[in-house]
Amino acid sequence: MSILVVGSVAFDTIETPHGKRERCQGGAATHFAIAASFFTDVRVIGVVGDDFGPKQEEAFKKRNIDISGIEHIPGEKCFHWAGSYEGALNEAKTLQTDLNVFADFSPKVPSNYQDSDFLFLANIDPVLQKRVMDAMPDVKMVAGDTMNYWIADHRDNLLKMLAGLDTLIINDGEARMLSGEHNLVKAAKKVIEMGPKSLVIKHGEYGATAFFCERSFPGTKNTTVPFRAPALPLEEVVDPTGAGDSFAGGFYGYLAAQKEITPRAFRTALFYGGVMGSFAVEKFGIERLRDATREEIEERFRLFREISHLDLDAE
Amino acid sequence: MSILVVGSVAFDTIETPHGKRERCQGGAATHFAIAASFFTDVRVIGVVGDDFGPKQEEAFKKRNIDISGIEHIPGEKCFHWAGSYEGALNEAKTLQTDLNVFADFSPKVPSNYQDSDFLFLANIDPVLQKRVMDAMPDVKMVAGDTMNYWIADHRDNLLKMLAGLDTLIINDGEARMLSGEHNLVKAAKKVIEMGPKSLVIKHGEYGATAFFCERSFPGTKNTTVPFRAPALPLEEVVDPTGAGDSFAGGFYGYLAAQKEITPRAFRTALFYGGVMGSFAVEKFGIERLRDATREEIEERFRLFREISHLDLDAE
Repeated sequence: MSILVVGSVAFDTIETPHGKRERCQGGAATHFAIAASFFTDVRVIGVVGDDFGPKQEEAFKKRNIDISGIEHIPGEKCFHWAGSYEGALNEAKTLQTDLNVFADFSPKVPSNYQDSDFLFLANIDPVLQKRVMDAMPDVKMVAGDTMNYWIADHRDNLLKMLAGLDTLIINDGEARMLSGEHNLVKAAKKVIEMGPKSLVIKHGEYGATAFFCERSFPGTKNTTVPFRAPALPLEEVVDPTGAGDSFAGGFYGYLAAQKEITPRAFRTALFYGGVMGSFAVEKFGIERLRDATREEIEERFRLFREISHLDLDAE
Repeated sequence: MSILVVGSVAFDTIETPHGKRERCQGGAATHFAIAASFFTDVRVIGVVGDDFGPKQEEAFKKRNIDISGIEHIPGEKCFHWAGSYEGALNEAKTLQTDLNVFADFSPKVPSNYQDSDFLFLANIDPVLQKRVMDAMPDVKMVAGDTMNYWIADHRDNLLKMLAGLDTLIINDGEARMLSGEHNLVKAAKKVIEMGPKSLVIKHGEYGATAFFCERSFPGTKNTTVPFRAPALPLEEVVDPTGAGDSFAGGFYGYLAAQKEITPRAFRTALFYGGVMGSFAVEKFGIERLRDATREEIEERFRLFREISHLDLDAE
């Protein structure tokens, strides 16, 4: 099954305790697409400027990602974000945001993307997310992301988008802000009342929790019990930029590759999300994820089971 | 196998968003002992004043806990702690500490406790922890806890105690403070270099991670991979006081009840730790834990597996 992702295709200038990198290839759609491409076909809708050249295209082509839906605006530049991380590397401090081509982004779904099976709405203006969602009424599943800016200042538009989601993937802080509840279980209930059939809350180095409502898996029983997936305890987190998008890509890519979206497939997908997130942070930008292999991914998936499951054979 | 625990037997005045309770029965040894008593025989060493009466004794006796090693100081009062929790309920703000009988606590191991198999050193002065450890050289296993106060101001004494531990059980903040490392994997490595063969780091609502060194399980292989146990996503956390001690009690109680301390037993014990911690926070003080049943514990253990394991039968 194919995934269509809409979101930012950008450059990031990143400073972490491990060093500084100027203008790494990045953006939510980039991280998501590369992570998902290890599992299924991926198509990207985005907008770029003249600074998006053959080198940047190559990163997508190497992973067989269809970028025919990325619009080029001549004479302009790509979206650029600069940020720094300190201490726990949990939260980025934004130093600079240059919207550039992104300021007037108006996503269009090309005809060759119309038969996409799964839709992922990366973190952009919820008005645009909703527009793409409405343009793709026949997809099997719609998942999406958002951030504090839209939650705080564009709530009405955000709520219209959330109403159409199968799965919302956000972090602890966003779940608390969106719901007004500090307790994450209460927060999840409120968010699910806004429309999403399921909610994945990412806890950074502590993993992720999925919450479900009765509509999550029609025809199956006992599906409303939450599920917790671990994160790998990592000694070196070089750059957390894109970890959440890589998590979403691994999660959604695995899910799109399954015959049927069952509770078990959903749970397993969360583990693959963690796996792709764990690769993403090992190097700057997309460096590590881009060079991953399917064998490495399976090996790390086994490691995720080993660190979290009781009943493995090894005594 | 029997567990000997040494620690505080106290009263707590607790304020949380769910209300206020004056002088609840509490203390680290109390929470630990009650949690562990569902799995194995428990004996307590502590010190109390005249305010520790038949009602307080009853809570131990109901759980068949041996309190013949609790010393009564006539004319004095029990240790009393007052604290409040806000927001995420993750951290207590101490409002008042009345050491009372605890100021001159000098633990002695009664002769009827000498044959104890497992020793748990709850959070007290590391000099006293070390003294009890030295008085019990033949136990099968020694585990212990500590806190920021001892880490900051009694480091040398703490290091002497840590050198003799099989397992240290502390939280994220304590692990970071003790090691001087923000990254928890790096922190764990440094703490294990201080002596403990294994380290359990409690992450509150996110569960716990165990780290092992090669000496953790002599004769077994592949034992240095960390292990992550979940916490139950709870909608109502009424009072977190004693959750960490209840976790330690469930963990250690389960372990002491096994024929052999294998990696699998250790991992399973972490799940039971989470189970007992999840009960502890549901009511004030020891109210919920005291009234738990073995059936409820097993049911919740199954729930912990259900929320974290991929390969259960249910689709």
